[in-house]
Amino acid sequence: MSGNTFGTLLKVTTWGESHGVAIGCVVDGCPAGLELSEADVQRELDRRRPGQSDVTTQRTESDSVRILSGTFRGVTTGTPISMIVFNQDADSSKYDRIVDLLRPGHADYTYHEKYGVRDHRGGGRASARETIGRVAAGAVAKKLLREQRVEVLGHVIEIGGIKAENVSIDQIRSNVEANPVRCADTVAWKVMLDAVVQAKEAGESLGGIVEIVALDVPPGVGEPIFNKLNADLAAGLMGIGAVKGVEIGAGFKAASMRGSEMNDSFEIKDGRIHTTTNNAGGILGGISTGEPIITRIAVKPTPSIAKPQKTVNIKKMEESELRIEGRHDPAIPPRIVPVAEAMVALVLADHMIQNGFIHPSRLDRKLEGE
Amino acid sequence: MSGNTFGTLLKVTTWGESHGVAIGCVVDGCPAGLELSEADVQRELDRRRPGQSDVTTQRTESDSVRILSGTFRGVTTGTPISMIVFNQDADSSKYDRIVDLLRPGHADYTYHEKYGVRDHRGGGRASARETIGRVAAGAVAKKLLREQRVEVLGHVIEIGGIKAENVSIDQIRSNVEANPVRCADTVAWKVMLDAVVQAKEAGESLGGIVEIVALDVPPGVGEPIFNKLNADLAAGLMGIGAVKGVEIGAGFKAASMRGSEMNDSFEIKDGRIHTTTNNAGGILGGISTGEPIITRIAVKPTPSIAKPQKTVNIKKMEESELRIEGRHDPAIPPRIVPVAEAMVALVLADHMIQNGFIHPSRLDRKLEGE
Amino acid sequence: MSGNTFGTLLKVTTWGESHGVAIGCVVDGCPAGLELSEADVQRELDRRRPGQSDVTTQRTESDSVRILSGTFRGVTTGTPISMIVFNQDADSSKYDRIVDLLRPGHADYTYHEKYGVRDHRGGGRASARETIGRVAAGAVAKKLLREQRVEVLGHVIEIGGIKAENVSIDQIRSNVEANPVRCADTVAWKVMLDAVVQAKEAGESLGGIVEIVALDVPPGVGEPIFNKLNADLAAGLMGIGAVKGVEIGAGFKAASMRGSEMNDSFEIKDGRIHTTTNNAGGILGGISTGEPIITRIAVKPTPSIAKPQKTVNIKKMEESELRIEGRHDPAIPPRIVPVAEAMVALVLADHMIQNGFIHPSRLDRKLEGE
Amino acid sequence: MSGNTFGTLLKVTTWGESHGVAIGCVVDGCPAGLELSEADVQRELDRRRPGQSDVTTQRTESDSVRILSGTFRGVTTGTPISMIVFNQDADSSKYDRIVDLLRPGHADYTYHEKYGVRDHRGGGRASARETIGRVAAGAVAKKLLREQRVEVLGHVIEIGGIKAENVSIDQIRSNVEANPVRCADTVAWKVMLDAVVQAKEAGESLGGIVEIVALDVPPGVGEPIFNKLNADLAAGLMGIGAVKGVEIGAGFKAASMRGSEMNDSFEIKDGRIHTTTNNAGGILGGISTGEPIITRIAVKPTPSIAKPQKTVNIKKMEESELRIEGRHDPAIPPRIVPVAEAMVALVLADHMIQNGFIHPSRLDRKLEGE
Repeated sequence: MSGNTFGTLLKVTTWGESHGVAIGCVVDGCPAGLELSEADVQRELDRRRPGQSDVTTQRTESDSVRILSGTFRGVTTGTPISMIVFNQDADSSKYDRIVDLLRPGHADYTYHEKYGVRDHRGGGRASARETIGRVAAGAVAKKLLREQRVEVLGHVIEIGGIKAENVSIDQIRSNVEANPVRCADTVAWKVMLDAVVQAKEAGESLGGIVEIVALDVPPGVGEPIFNKLNADLAAGLMGIGAVKGVEIGAGFKAASMRGSEMNDSFEIKDGRIHTTTNNAGGILGGISTGEPIITRIAVKPTPSIAKPQKTVNIKKMEESELRIEGRHDPAIPPRIVPVAEAMVALVLADHMIQNGFIHPSRLDRKLEGE
Repeated sequence: MSGNTFGTLLKVTTWGESHGVAIGCVVDGCPAGLELSEADVQRELDRRRPGQSDVTTQRTESDSVRILSGTFRGVTTGTPISMIVFNQDADSSKYDRIVDLLRPGHADYTYHEKYGVRDHRGGGRASARETIGRVAAGAVAKKLLREQRVEVLGHVIEIGGIKAENVSIDQIRSNVEANPVRCADTVAWKVMLDAVVQAKEAGESLGGIVEIVALDVPPGVGEPIFNKLNADLAAGLMGIGAVKGVEIGAGFKAASMRGSEMNDSFEIKDGRIHTTTNNAGGILGGISTGEPIITRIAVKPTPSIAKPQKTVNIKKMEESELRIEGRHDPAIPPRIVPVAEAMVALVLADHMIQNGFIHPSRLDRKLEGE
Repeated sequence: MSGNTFGTLLKVTTWGESHGVAIGCVVDGCPAGLELSEADVQRELDRRRPGQSDVTTQRTESDSVRILSGTFRGVTTGTPISMIVFNQDADSSKYDRIVDLLRPGHADYTYHEKYGVRDHRGGGRASARETIGRVAAGAVAKKLLREQRVEVLGHVIEIGGIKAENVSIDQIRSNVEANPVRCADTVAWKVMLDAVVQAKEAGESLGGIVEIVALDVPPGVGEPIFNKLNADLAAGLMGIGAVKGVEIGAGFKAASMRGSEMNDSFEIKDGRIHTTTNNAGGILGGISTGEPIITRIAVKPTPSIAKPQKTVNIKKMEESELRIEGRHDPAIPPRIVPVAEAMVALVLADHMIQNGFIHPSRLDRKLEGE
Repeated sequence: MSGNTFGTLLKVTTWGESHGVAIGCVVDGCPAGLELSEADVQRELDRRRPGQSDVTTQRTESDSVRILSGTFRGVTTGTPISMIVFNQDADSSKYDRIVDLLRPGHADYTYHEKYGVRDHRGGGRASARETIGRVAAGAVAKKLLREQRVEVLGHVIEIGGIKAENVSIDQIRSNVEANPVRCADTVAWKVMLDAVVQAKEAGESLGGIVEIVALDVPPGVGEPIFNKLNADLAAGLMGIGAVKGVEIGAGFKAASMRGSEMNDSFEIKDGRIHTTTNNAGGILGGISTGEPIITRIAVKPTPSIAKPQKTVNIKKMEESELRIEGRHDPAIPPRIVPVAEAMVALVLADHMIQNGFIHPSRLDRKLEGE
């Protein structure tokens, strides 16, 4: 499969290496008639960009995107949207020195086993720079969703064991972009930031938890059995580099709940069916209920740390010590927020097309209700 | 998509409703030359079968499988393997009474929204009986894996908040089938069982956590980016009815670990590269490391409970109360074990074919090492 | 891939061997709300059935179909439709005698190379009986199309070099089922029939050409580039056992036409855009024009002939002579008509769903025009 | 589906419009370890390039390709190979004048129906320039095949009704690139060329037939049933812009042959099984026999002709006359040769990976015979 394509009717294929010429993606299946500019995509890429703050990698990349195809006079034509970002500040020198040392927590060893040949510079294809393609494609998906009044919001709810308080949707909307950790809790983010700075100084890194909420997805979106909306969300989110866990709604807490607690009762409100609680996280039987879709991902601490680590020299087949230099994020959760939003948006837009909520070819054609 | 097919080179398509004529699956892409009998499949189906113990549903189904195609003289031929189980003990009367009452935690409402028409009897396609097709297909995948000396083991590690102690692989092998909760901890299982019995008596149900371990998967199995081995495992496991969360290796604990704790150091042992710990859960960059692949799933409490619940009558569009009668598992984790094993086995066998570890057409052809 | 599944949103997976227990298919992606009975499917299967006339194989199969899932009270539910036909009159004795002799024009040798193991009885999976699954699935597709007022008509236009005159759509409708060669030319069919009878007596077989026409497909159905409507039709039709060529519209004649002859001029008729001629065969740039979609297939003479043939004994690896006994069609075109119609119907229904002309989940939801 | 991706394990996604910024493709699934340079790809693009001779369009495009990812130090790494060609000589002025006039034989009307919005300049996505992506991807597939000693050769065998004599493989190898019509018959090509020149002067265009032969494909490559090697070849070839028919081996001639003529007898030669004739065109039951794979395509005359044509003004919805100016090929067959070779090479390389003849991840791993 090779696995560089994601989606069923709305598809993205990403390509490019961290220290190669460029990084990009092709989005196929976006209906004609969507207004789309480079600025729409750039806005999302800027949220993912390195060098945003003191606690992200200092690699200097403007990550300017160019749309090469698929739009005409600012509107999509239904043909593939090819987008490209040229790499600028790749510094391979630090990687050449450790070319044969397997970096713990990275894909060096497994790529070596699978492919034999690999571009070791900056992790090559396994670099977080690959997510540029996801975020660019996600920007298209988000615009599609916005036309349907669906909103996707991500925020950091835990870093280094420090948990945010529960926040409202409005707090997420207002606060997330206002602080470098993308946490909507106006108190907790400062504690998180301190923890990240301290970890960095200690040659360490921290993990965390990111929550992504999708609002106003209509009921009836999704497929039963294998392509459940939650299954596709799980695949999309678990496929992001540092993610070690995915949960929906009550998630792992459901394991210790009783049926009567977990079950969301149905009620009628404003003439529509709702659930009184949302432990299901907006999905039942793989199909949306109309309530907010709530997912959470566990993000591991950045594997690139300054502290010396034990490892193996693959060429000499002998044990060795590794010191990773270079510019690395001491905690990924803040920068993973736009990536996770992108994956959720891609899955939702794809399923909305698959389920007849968005016309597959042209946005000026609408579906009729009952 | 409709989503009733799973896999890339080894595919399973499942079909059938809980109270329909039969349930079955078609497995496509199994190489020729695998010895396969109905007994091989029956063994796994018996582990999933209702009525195994006091704490499973008392619906009486022998779940006898028949292989209709794809084998010749006890050996697979590379053509589709069609398997069927006829339904016997369907009792639809209890469902006819509640046909218009949306059962909380079930797919009634979402199927209604998506399809309009639905077979309400026993949940129709959304019933746990659908997993018969998965388990039958998983039995084929397991046999394929066993030829490669890969073993897939599932066990219950938590029910109703009661956690099992850490157990060894040998304890899992010996103990899981020896008790009705499929827990390898010889003390904890009894406490779990008591909790399940009490929940049942209280008209309640319990959730839990199941761990699935795959041993001796060689390094180099998986795809980078979107079809990461962990992403496909997440999709496969999250697509099982009652699952609300999936994690790999350290999972959600990774969120509060530091880089130096989380990273698994590389070492050389018996002439091969290993990691000293296995927080990665056997997967780095989407590709297997050769260490055990460890996944865990959060299983929600059975939504069908005897306690009265608030809900909506969809026909009258008015609020109502629901009392579910019928035969239901008070806790699903024990019966989900073989289903989860099946999904893991299907993903692994598929990826091993995709990566050249199993010949796609015939088992008598082997791959050459370096 | 294994290749036993066809389609993108409307999918069919076929399974079963000629002399196995049964033959069947699973149709996935049929929207809910379509009235569907076993009689609907049986009607089409009866057109494909052996023993219809003197010039078809005399194997006695009632080919009675049973629908095992996917309908409820006579209406589809959007879940997979599993259909089964049990084999009855399989006589394997004649095949056991020639188990090691490669039958020329058959798949014996290539299956041997690909799979090693094979079910030699009646050609196993490579038998024309496999098309039962296609025809059953095609019956569902045809019903879906009929709801959209799209009609698919096949007819034999050449057998053994004898060509039918051009016929009108009404002649096809009236005459095709009225004679055993399924030719709409009321004169030519008798000449064709004589030729078939003579060929049979001479231990020979004949080929022919079948045309399939689809009427009232709206303009705008299809995909550009690789999944052009014509490309998918070509794949579907070329994948039928004995087909050696596929053409659309002017087909191979286009090769010797001039641009001004070939181009179909546009005109306005009844307020809609039409073309004055239809050399394009109803498809431009991979997308339907609204004119009739016209395809033709070249069918080779049945490879099973009574005449002795030179071949190889694969076990002894020595040259040998083969005499095929058994019951074989002296000319396949008449029985390929329903199979080819089925493939065209499947492609069209799939593309109509993909392009928003049929709602993917439920037929009671319609698309709005401009 | 959108249909801009082709292939199962070796996939190409093409993107770009005739008068857009650039044209390109992403090749996914090429194993690691293949030597690949821009020169390898350029060589094939130069064969497709406009302005090669007097009888091709005079648009001046160097069509210089750049490889943006997927190789490292001249060798593929198993990651996606992104290739780009910037457009240079696009002259949209001639198209702006006829923006509302539907060009007969082109996709203007059908794109309008499907998408509403379209890039009318040079046909946008429906331009023959889209095939740049196919040819670039095909260059990769050809290199992969050459490693397996498989050769793909295309040649023109008919233009404007003028047929070439039968030629040997060696004549194809020597003569095809030596004349502007890519015909291996050293006499006929001159007659064809004259016919093309005359057609051009008369404001007309000619069609033709191209044959593509693949040599030394081992027996056992392909899938039965729906993904037959011939079905995938048919899809790949019928999906090329101007193709109206595809045939394999005896093709349409098979329709008038008798069984004993059509069947290829098996014999033993050099210790291997061969057929004495090759009416099957190298494929039986969808799987390769080891004999040359022979396909032929019918190419329609270029729809863009200088002669005035009747058509419709889509904006005014009134009938009108169209005069197409601009630079167009009076006959496409010579330039379609590398495109058709590319499609055949892509299908074969994909099926060889699918069938274990090429390792899916790395070329330094080989498969073991019996």
